[in-house]
Amino acid sequence: MALRQAHAVGEVVGVVRRPEAVAEAIEMGAVDRATMNGPAAVAEADVVVLATPVRTIIRQIAELGPHMRPGTVLTDMGSTKRAICQAMEALPRGVQPVGSHPMCGKERSGIAAAEPGLFRDRIWVVSPLDRSSPEAVQTVEALGRIVGSRIIHLDPARHDQLVAAVSHLPYLLSCGLVATVDALGQYDPEVWTVAASGFRDTSRLAASDVRMMLDILLTNREAVLAMVERFEADIRALADRLRHGDEAGLAVRLEQIRGIRQEHSPR
Amino acid sequence: MALRQAHAVGEVVGVVRRPEAVAEAIEMGAVDRATMNGPAAVAEADVVVLATPVRTIIRQIAELGPHMRPGTVLTDMGSTKRAICQAMEALPRGVQPVGSHPMCGKERSGIAAAEPGLFRDRIWVVSPLDRSSPEAVQTVEALGRIVGSRIIHLDPARHDQLVAAVSHLPYLLSCGLVATVDALGQYDPEVWTVAASGFRDTSRLAASDVRMMLDILLTNREAVLAMVERFEADIRALADRLRHGDEAGLAVRLEQIRGIRQEHSPR
Repeated sequence: MALRQAHAVGEVVGVVRRPEAVAEAIEMGAVDRATMNGPAAVAEADVVVLATPVRTIIRQIAELGPHMRPGTVLTDMGSTKRAICQAMEALPRGVQPVGSHPMCGKERSGIAAAEPGLFRDRIWVVSPLDRSSPEAVQTVEALGRIVGSRIIHLDPARHDQLVAAVSHLPYLLSCGLVATVDALGQYDPEVWTVAASGFRDTSRLAASDVRMMLDILLTNREAVLAMVERFEADIRALADRLRHGDEAGLAVRLEQIRGIRQEHSPR
Repeated sequence: MALRQAHAVGEVVGVVRRPEAVAEAIEMGAVDRATMNGPAAVAEADVVVLATPVRTIIRQIAELGPHMRPGTVLTDMGSTKRAICQAMEALPRGVQPVGSHPMCGKERSGIAAAEPGLFRDRIWVVSPLDRSSPEAVQTVEALGRIVGSRIIHLDPARHDQLVAAVSHLPYLLSCGLVATVDALGQYDPEVWTVAASGFRDTSRLAASDVRMMLDILLTNREAVLAMVERFEADIRALADRLRHGDEAGLAVRLEQIRGIRQEHSPR
């Protein structure tokens, strides 16, 4: 939708699962035409963009790859990169794969949630493979720039570790918070009445699409679990200072943390 | 500022610490006049509203109480209620204390961050004491309603337990998250580049005023630590399912949590 609005591409062909989605996608202006036939669609494409949950992307790479012409650029919108780029290595010679990940999630999913401005002023991570041609990498970078994103390059393992910290850990914290409040809510439902903006923001990610998140967690398990462990140590260090009444130590640490947050995420 | 804009009160007298704040508060339209002399200001007040950090409120109750006339209604904006309502019990007979807590924090503090619309459509918790007269309670409820809040009554211990879950725990999670990301950032600063909206929302509370939060944590220590412990068990239960590759169990639990979040915090 964003690329079409920018008049940056020729024909956009959508591959959908539900028959109704053919008309929905056209009506929304997301595509020029849509089909449920993936192999036929990719066979005539110059650029293929896989924008499904991570494990579906991996399956589609294997299923659709053999139908692509030599020179076709294949990229993806997946939130983890190691497993996807590994699957891309097995593509037929000639297909030009480049991993990518625009950092712009939202909780709503499906065509109706599509939003052409979603990519504007966001970071778009590009993870080239050794086999990616410079031209293919430039094509994927151009897609990102046209929709308003800033391109950075990260190798897949590094990408996955960084997003484990800033994206997958926050999701699990958000879910854990909802679970904790819900347990209290079982015997005092008024807890939901007093839940204010602080709770809403901190728990927002718990509303994310589960299928999408499950694929992310399962394809980035080690990095995510390592971050949960680090977090557990960090929260325990804060709680211990509170438990021991170490007011001075707690104040210093909370001010440090506040300064770090202000420095890196001013808003 | 909100009460003045609603033309709901007579003269509003601000008690400030910094000499410059006298002019600032008048200029912003927050007060009719301002003074640094608390005892003199409360001696002529019909209603006194203490809006400082919790332990300052507790000190001010003791310091200012003896200067108030019989019948003066004393309330507060403190984020914990047990310690404050306990301090209110010791006020001179005749003074009419009523604990209260409008659920509307923001990260910025100080006069410049004042915002008359802050209370609109928010929950305002009123915690009457045994000694509070019905008229005093009604006065405090009226303050809340005039500025657009919805009044609910909670006894202090119950209030403190509920906000430990929906407000103080989220603050500590937010701080822990920033600490974890910062530790990674020490050897890979690019982590801050990929920190997107999910991180920003989940870490927003870490930017809260530390002095205010420290007083809250220290006057609600047991309830906060109990919530941290519950949370640790909840996050561990999620991480364990991931660790053991229990995809079905993880999916079911994450969908439950998503449903709970959607039900109670739609947005």
